[in-house]
Order: sequence, then C-alpha cells, then structure tokens
Amino acid sequence: MRIAICQMEALAGDVAVNLRLIEAAAERAAAGGARLMVAPELAVTGYGAGEAIRRLAEPADGPQVRRLQALSKTQGLAIVAGFAERAGEMIFNSLVMVEGEAEPTVYRKTHLYGDYERALFKPGQLQSALRDFQGLKLGFLICYDVEFPENLRRLARAGADLVLVPTALPQGPFAPFIATSVVPVRAFENQLFVVYANHGGRDENFAYAGLSRAVGPDGLCLAAAADDKAALLFADIEPAAFEASRRANTYLADL
Amino acid sequence: MRIAICQMEALAGDVAVNLRLIEAAAERAAAGGARLMVAPELAVTGYGAGEAIRRLAEPADGPQVRRLQALSKTQGLAIVAGFAERAGEMIFNSLVMVEGEAEPTVYRKTHLYGDYERALFKPGQLQSALRDFQGLKLGFLICYDVEFPENLRRLARAGADLVLVPTALPQGPFAPFIATSVVPVRAFENQLFVVYANHGGRDENFAYAGLSRAVGPDGLCLAAAADDKAALLFADIEPAAFEASRRANTYLADL
Repeated sequence: MRIAICQMEALAGDVAVNLRLIEAAAERAAAGGARLMVAPELAVTGYGAGEAIRRLAEPADGPQVRRLQALSKTQGLAIVAGFAERAGEMIFNSLVMVEGEAEPTVYRKTHLYGDYERALFKPGQLQSALRDFQGLKLGFLICYDVEFPENLRRLARAGADLVLVPTALPQGPFAPFIATSVVPVRAFENQLFVVYANHGGRDENFAYAGLSRAVGPDGLCLAAAADDKAALLFADIEPAAFEASRRANTYLADL
Repeated sequence: MRIAICQMEALAGDVAVNLRLIEAAAERAAAGGARLMVAPELAVTGYGAGEAIRRLAEPADGPQVRRLQALSKTQGLAIVAGFAERAGEMIFNSLVMVEGEAEPTVYRKTHLYGDYERALFKPGQLQSALRDFQGLKLGFLICYDVEFPENLRRLARAGADLVLVPTALPQGPFAPFIATSVVPVRAFENQLFVVYANHGGRDENFAYAGLSRAVGPDGLCLAAAADDKAALLFADIEPAAFEASRRANTYLADL
C-alpha cells in the first residue's frame, strides 16, 4: 500500500492557500500511486498561526473537512491532515482522516507541547481507536504524542500496523535526534510502521525541521526528507516484507 | 563522576580467566580515575558458556562475588558485573554491584531473550530499587530489559539518574540499531544516563557486537566502542551539564 508524505511549507493563518497546497500535493500523490497522503499537524491553518487559530478553528463537519473529503473523492486517495477542531467552547489540536464518502476519523492530540499549544488547545483524551484501511490497521498520534513510548505501545497492543503522525517539529538542538532516532525506535520497539509528516520552511513563530519520514518495523527509513524544504515522499507499506524483523524482535509477546 | 566500561572478550566457561580480565580492567579503570566500572552480562562465566553455567552458578554471597568485593576494595572503585546467580534450585541471569565493604546489590534480569536464556535461567521479578552512589541514584537492567521502554520508565519515575546495563548483544542485522538508536533513545526519553557494556569477540555459541557506550540525557554518546574488540571506555557522568536538555525535554512531567 503506497503512502505519500506531504512535507508542507504552509502559509500560517491562510486556510485557502494551505488547502490549495494540499490539493496540489494530493493530485501528485494520486498520480504517483498513493492510496493515502499524510499532511502535517495543523496543516490547514498552519502550525504557527497563533491567535488566528481561535478564529479559524472549525467543527469536524465544517467546510474545511468537507473540502478535504471532496478532494479525497476527486483524487481517489485517503487524506490525513491536521486542523484546529472547534467543539463548543473548546479547540483541539486534531487530525482528520477522510476517505471519499466514508465517515471521517478525528484524533485529538493528547500531549500538548509547551506554552504555545497549551494556551490555544485543550488536550484530547487517551484513546486507542484504530481505522481499517486497505487491509491495515491505522493508529493516529500528533507530534509530541509520538515522543512518549506509552502512546505507541497502546496502539501496538490494540493491533496497529501503521501509526500516522502529523507533526510540527521546529528546528532546534534536539530536532534531528527526535526525527532520526526517536521516531525509528518507536517503529522498531513495536514492530510496526510509523509515518512522520512535518512542516518545512518557517512562519513568524517557528522554523520547522522538515526531516519527514516513513519507517519500517526494522527501524530503517522507507523514505525520508533530507532537509526542511517542501517535499512529497512516497513509501510502500508492506508488512509481509518484515517477517524476519517481527520474528527476531518479539517485543509485544515478551513484554 | 567518572565511570569505565569494560568491553570484554570473555573466555566462555572459564571463571578464573574472566575474573583476571576483570581485575586487569579494574586496575586500569582506577588508574584512569573511574569510581565505577561496568562489565558485561554474565561477565564472570562468559555469556556463551551454555550448560556449564549450571555448574558455575554461585550464590550472591559466594566466592565469585567475594572476589569482586576484594577487587573493589583493593582498587578503590565500585564494580558492576554480570554473573550466574544460584538461589536454591533456581539460576538467575544477575548482576552484582560491589563497593568495598558495603552490602552488594543484586539485580536479576526480568526479560530473558530467546530459547538459550530461557533454558538456563528463571526471570527475575520487576523491581525499581535504586542504589545511591556518589550523589547519583543508580538503576540496573540487563541486556534485553533495556529494549523495553517500560523498564527504563519505571526506573526514571523512581528517580534514577543513571541506568547501568551489562549486556550480551550478539552480532546480527538488528544489533547496530539497538546499540546506536534504541539505547540512546532510552536515555533521551527519560532524560537520564545509560551505560551499556557489551561483550566483544566470540565464543562457541555467539559472536558479540561490541558497540558498548555511555549516553547522556540528550541522546548523544559520551563514549562509544567503534567495533567488537575488547576495550576500556571512560565517561564522565555530570548531570549538571544537561540542564538545557532537561528543561527542553520534559517527558516525565508531561506524561
């Protein structure tokens, strides 16, 4: 099952521009044979939009998600993208998975990072719901969530084959280690696939690290962005190819 | 606090030779200013000694441990080393920490790896006991134990500053990833130090990966063996030097 990772240079606060960027990427992803494309955390508003996020947040059945659904139907591929979800008085840092006419799946980030996020969002409740897609069981996390081994383990024990992680990892002294060591170890220690889709470029609040990647159960990258530039990556998710790794690294059975 | 890592080429089944190797290393470690030396899993018997381990196993107050205590006293440094511990009818894959006249600390491996170990040993009970040493709180794991994030997390939440991990990581397709990615991520995700002391060389059952290392809370190596040859590594464990990492990576507070 081919997936695409959309490493975006979003325009913070401009939903119309960001939806057009996602559309253009989805068209290329579909043309490249992808069945699923993953865009970053808060891809729709831009991660660094700050206070504007309060105004731009929409319910999970609002126009932003409906637009992504229409795009999914037109291009014939599923899309996972981060958006600011309004739910009554609360705003969550959420992602949605749309797949044509099917009911969208929404996941709310549970582990907010730092003062910026905690000022804007409520944390979601821990959950382990998986979504069936193309014979795989998909789990969802957002950014900082993936840095806690407990979150991946919970999804792995629920049966996840592939965990999709929209992220907004800023540049900084620890960013390369998180992308190139922490994320691969999460895949290895649970013997599943992890897709980590980051922003590139910068906005007025943050410069992003890029380094998006898809990692297999053996901890090795199937695809990886070398830098922080906008990029569309492709990776084939084939669990059968990792039988030797699962046989040698029986962490879930031995825990 | 300076530690030394003794990457050994043990002679499987020959306790006298292995104790002499440990003695020679301890002498060099002490001369180099180390306060503590860590030797590999089953350093005293050799990891690959097979059935001979049943005969060579000794209680934690037996001659092997008393010899290590005497060495600790003579050289003026603490020693952590793996040994086969006899307890009634049972044999555990254990380590002992000796420090001159002080009561030794024994830790029994909880997560046995593969048929070889499961045929020889009983697993120990999960525990989080720490030992105070030179102003630090030390935790203990053995080899496969460290590959499970739950085991480090338990020690970190109990307050460990430094986790000592004698190991016997064989060569193989996953060994470099375990040494160079999994072990550093364990340090980073808990913001503590990890010392991973492996065997080098080979015996009739296994060829060992070497790649011993000491890793800081930022995930970077303080010292690392580049290959599988016998080596004595030194690293200075200075928690105060990692204040910036602990301030940025607040995993224990945010979990």
